[in-house]
Amino acid sequence: MPSDTVTLPPRDEAAVAGVIDTLRGQMGDRVQTGAAIRAQHGHTTTWLATQAPDAVVFVRSTEEVQAVVRACAAARVPVIPYGTGTSLEGHLNAPAGGISIDLSAMDQVLEVNAADLDCRVQPGVTRTALNTYLRDTGLFFPVDPGADASLGGMAATRASGTNAVRYGTMRDAVLGLKAVLPNGEVMTSAHRARKTSAGYDLTRLMVGSEGTLGIITELTLRLHGIPDSISAATCAFPTVEDACNTAIEALQMGLPVARMELMDALSVKAVNLHSKLGLPETPMLLLEFHGSAAGVAEQAESFGLIAEEHGGQGFRWTANPQERNKLWQARHDAYWAFHTLMPGLKSVSTDVCVPISSLAECVARAREKAEGMDLTTPVLGHVGDGNFHMLVPLQEGDPDQMRRVKGFLGWLAELAISYQGTCTGEHGIGQGKMPYLVAELGPEAVAVMRAIKGAVDPLNIMNPGKIFDLGNAGPLQT
Amino acid sequence: MPSDTVTLPPRDEAAVAGVIDTLRGQMGDRVQTGAAIRAQHGHTTTWLATQAPDAVVFVRSTEEVQAVVRACAAARVPVIPYGTGTSLEGHLNAPAGGISIDLSAMDQVLEVNAADLDCRVQPGVTRTALNTYLRDTGLFFPVDPGADASLGGMAATRASGTNAVRYGTMRDAVLGLKAVLPNGEVMTSAHRARKTSAGYDLTRLMVGSEGTLGIITELTLRLHGIPDSISAATCAFPTVEDACNTAIEALQMGLPVARMELMDALSVKAVNLHSKLGLPETPMLLLEFHGSAAGVAEQAESFGLIAEEHGGQGFRWTANPQERNKLWQARHDAYWAFHTLMPGLKSVSTDVCVPISSLAECVARAREKAEGMDLTTPVLGHVGDGNFHMLVPLQEGDPDQMRRVKGFLGWLAELAISYQGTCTGEHGIGQGKMPYLVAELGPEAVAVMRAIKGAVDPLNIMNPGKIFDLGNAGPLQT
Repeated sequence: MPSDTVTLPPRDEAAVAGVIDTLRGQMGDRVQTGAAIRAQHGHTTTWLATQAPDAVVFVRSTEEVQAVVRACAAARVPVIPYGTGTSLEGHLNAPAGGISIDLSAMDQVLEVNAADLDCRVQPGVTRTALNTYLRDTGLFFPVDPGADASLGGMAATRASGTNAVRYGTMRDAVLGLKAVLPNGEVMTSAHRARKTSAGYDLTRLMVGSEGTLGIITELTLRLHGIPDSISAATCAFPTVEDACNTAIEALQMGLPVARMELMDALSVKAVNLHSKLGLPETPMLLLEFHGSAAGVAEQAESFGLIAEEHGGQGFRWTANPQERNKLWQARHDAYWAFHTLMPGLKSVSTDVCVPISSLAECVARAREKAEGMDLTTPVLGHVGDGNFHMLVPLQEGDPDQMRRVKGFLGWLAELAISYQGTCTGEHGIGQGKMPYLVAELGPEAVAVMRAIKGAVDPLNIMNPGKIFDLGNAGPLQT
Repeated sequence: MPSDTVTLPPRDEAAVAGVIDTLRGQMGDRVQTGAAIRAQHGHTTTWLATQAPDAVVFVRSTEEVQAVVRACAAARVPVIPYGTGTSLEGHLNAPAGGISIDLSAMDQVLEVNAADLDCRVQPGVTRTALNTYLRDTGLFFPVDPGADASLGGMAATRASGTNAVRYGTMRDAVLGLKAVLPNGEVMTSAHRARKTSAGYDLTRLMVGSEGTLGIITELTLRLHGIPDSISAATCAFPTVEDACNTAIEALQMGLPVARMELMDALSVKAVNLHSKLGLPETPMLLLEFHGSAAGVAEQAESFGLIAEEHGGQGFRWTANPQERNKLWQARHDAYWAFHTLMPGLKSVSTDVCVPISSLAECVARAREKAEGMDLTTPVLGHVGDGNFHMLVPLQEGDPDQMRRVKGFLGWLAELAISYQGTCTGEHGIGQGKMPYLVAELGPEAVAVMRAIKGAVDPLNIMNPGKIFDLGNAGPLQT
């Protein structure tokens, strides 16, 4: 059974006050304790209640992060790293109070090595800022989670997005990193070689560790050459299953699709309402192909043939940039269209990911279940990865609806697990998905995570109360 | 300064004898203690002396691995996993004695999910056995380290090979795994979703952990569709630098090269001697392109144009399978050609990996240094990754030459580190590269590795004496 128990460090008001005093002495008014700033830094975009930190420190350097961590370690006060605040699972909440370290001012691109297709950045650089910086180099950074998140936060949550099917996730994008450890020292996980077998893969351990093992203060990222040509395509399908089977066949053929997004009929209806697009209200795939001019034409046409075999209708493709944007407008507007469809409601985004052969069935069962619970939930899917998001409407202040939403989220996580999938493809566990981690991986894996946490952060000061309850965080017992 | 100190568990003959008795009771004559079998299981293909285990157990199931680990844990006796014995860095040695677990009989492909492009295998399946099994599915497993290694061993050492530039390494190929932990329990690191953000990335922690954290007993691997067409190409260059610059430009253009191998003039001379090929004795690139018929033609031709700009001569390409094999014959024969070049000598393969912009300079300096030390060293490079192997001749029983070889290996590791590279791109640390790990990553990273080792394997029974000296393996100190 999943457990809701969380082991938090004891709260010591005097210790917190002492740390704030110490930090004020070092950083002056870059240490803020106003209620609005604190609430904003514990803000969460989900159904989880805000749990504000005791103070926010706006750091400018790795040395300052070290100073904060050392002060907090000495006083056993929690530290919570903050990038742009776009987390969806309560990663930024401070359930035991503590100091939020705002890294947004560490926003420098330190180095671009064009010949090596890599760069070194501070954690507060956002993905669009990096791509703006790179615009004259012929290179780009592909990972695109939608939000203009900070690269440090994207690494910490192992984010991905629409083009992971071609370019991978933050797991693949980070060559190495520097992180301030819970003891205040700075660790280098790897340098700039494109591959390495040198010891434990600490890069990948830190990527997705959600601030619980250290604070990332520098990233070495892999870049890609901007393709000569980009083509986009859209196609309508009779059913979600037809769309998924088309996607599966394209991947099996080795078609190097760069993006392959699914919208269900309800999502299409929402964007029709919102953007007056007049699209047929059936499931739809949106695609992007990267390569040479001849290559992207060939890819789009090959895809069109596969789609036709699976009942695809109205297949269109173009390599013209303006036309491309028009074809993709439905996807770009999807999030906002939700609010047109359900005015006045917030939404919670689910994030399950399953083997792609189970995607259609999983989506169908989830839709049916949601309807049975009187929840209207448009579906957006990164279909090449088997990852899909349902936008579940949230009526704040309606406990019955909240109970149904929570019930649905738990049911959906278990459904994904039953398909050998995961409760989270790209948003992370945070607070919101803690109940499902043991159900997904079993107690043995979680015991290893706890043992690692206990060994790297024995005082439990690093973003406590996230990912798993601490339980016995000591060495594995024989 | 790198340290040579290794902390090994104390050796207890009575405990070892007790474990062997216990295991014989369970597995009969699949527990072997003959000198030849023991020596073969501690065999190493490098300059490292063989350190045989006390016994070899030929296991058939995860449950049997658990039984061996439990018996060893109870008696504090080391366990060393064994796949095919193709490790190059002494991973299989038993410096403190113990039980070698031979996993080669766990050789079943358990499941192929063609629609999901994945499969589930036991660790003793070799990469060619898997590809033979897959031959009717239209899918293949890409990672190719040369040797027909076991997939469990390839995962444990984070192996890669000639097509990592396109398909990645074992880091990318493993979706999830099961491993017997040091306490005898079985951990599942992840299931079959193509991406996940669920907690610490235990899959990537186990991949490359060289048997020091657990024994992999099952792997879920990512497969790829066999491309419609494959073309191969070769080109000679005036200098290694010209060849490297061609490679860099091709990658920057986003040309999806599947393999891109460098042979230096000495390697070409060796294969000319060995296989009577009559190739011009200058540096050479060998390439492979995967895609549609039109795509691979376009890729080969685009590459030819880039090569020409960098002084490439005699560029040839073909999509005909027989012609392809002929073009690549030089690379296939390179390892054996070494022995024709230097009859009677063994060789040690170096494995440094540097940012590709430094590759040409690093190769040139390494060649110069080797010549200055009177070592004749052909160079083979996975140039798209910046990873190159020098085959350093080894005259067994010649202490002066051995000293020079060791000196050269250390110098080369430091050179690669000075270029922000790594001492090992794909062979792992094992025993052979332990002195360089701290120099490469610093004491902070190695302290984190030690803390993890101490938390997951507090008795230090899992392949002790590998990767790093144990030092203080307790939690990180503030």
